[in-house]
Amino acid sequence: MPPQASAGQLDADQIDELLRAEYIARIACHASGRTYVVPVLYAYDGDYVYGHASEGMKLRLMRANPEVCFDVERIESLTDWRTVIGWGRFEELHGDAANHAEQLLVERVMRLLPATPKARSGDHPAPRRAVVYRIALVERSGRYERR
Amino acid sequence: MPPQASAGQLDADQIDELLRAEYIARIACHASGRTYVVPVLYAYDGDYVYGHASEGMKLRLMRANPEVCFDVERIESLTDWRTVIGWGRFEELHGDAANHAEQLLVERVMRLLPATPKARSGDHPAPRRAVVYRIALVERSGRYERR
Repeated sequence: MPPQASAGQLDADQIDELLRAEYIARIACHASGRTYVVPVLYAYDGDYVYGHASEGMKLRLMRANPEVCFDVERIESLTDWRTVIGWGRFEELHGDAANHAEQLLVERVMRLLPATPKARSGDHPAPRRAVVYRIALVERSGRYERR
Repeated sequence: MPPQASAGQLDADQIDELLRAEYIARIACHASGRTYVVPVLYAYDGDYVYGHASEGMKLRLMRANPEVCFDVERIESLTDWRTVIGWGRFEELHGDAANHAEQLLVERVMRLLPATPKARSGDHPAPRRAVVYRIALVERSGRYERR
């Protein structure tokens, strides 16, 4: 028999699994009458989403209004997809907290790269971007379809 | 020699090409203190982006504040990607305009489906969703990286 077609809500474990598995999210933010959405590389530790950014529109808007929305997708086809939408609060990190976040981001990127000589990850650390931030996901929901 | 690494802005033709080639966008909207971003299926005719939606948060927010932001991506890897971010005005469609938009959306979906017996597209038209809309893209920008 073919697998059962289904669609509906993701449960908390499925939401967590998608957030850990993916690495590109879209952050939507809004301030001063301007709405903006942009893809970002992220790392996730179960509570927070971490990212880094250079100075620009995204940082300007998130500083002005830290309440942001967050979208992660795994879209195989029009009839086989899952998405997580979350809401949370942008927070700029400094000092040890920034170093911890940067480390998580570097580890996330390293897992994406093809196997390379071991020296490479140690010899060429990612350059520190202007700003490291986290978003506490206070609300999240997930949907899926599989037909 | 390896291909030259490069990064920068997409020109108008490259922006147009990406909008025509892709079919999933993220619409970000904001009203009453709530920011929302959600992936949508879209069709593009050079001027407008068309989509359909059921009643829900997305429609509620776009009706309250029709100024939305729009994100289309082609991400091959962390170092090979292009994105287009656009801004425009949400507009609900009715009558002939809605039928025209629905037709563009059906054609867009049909081009994505694997080859199927010809009768299929005619016998099973997509059900009309609650609302058909368009977004006039009044501002757009594109970026890419290839290393």
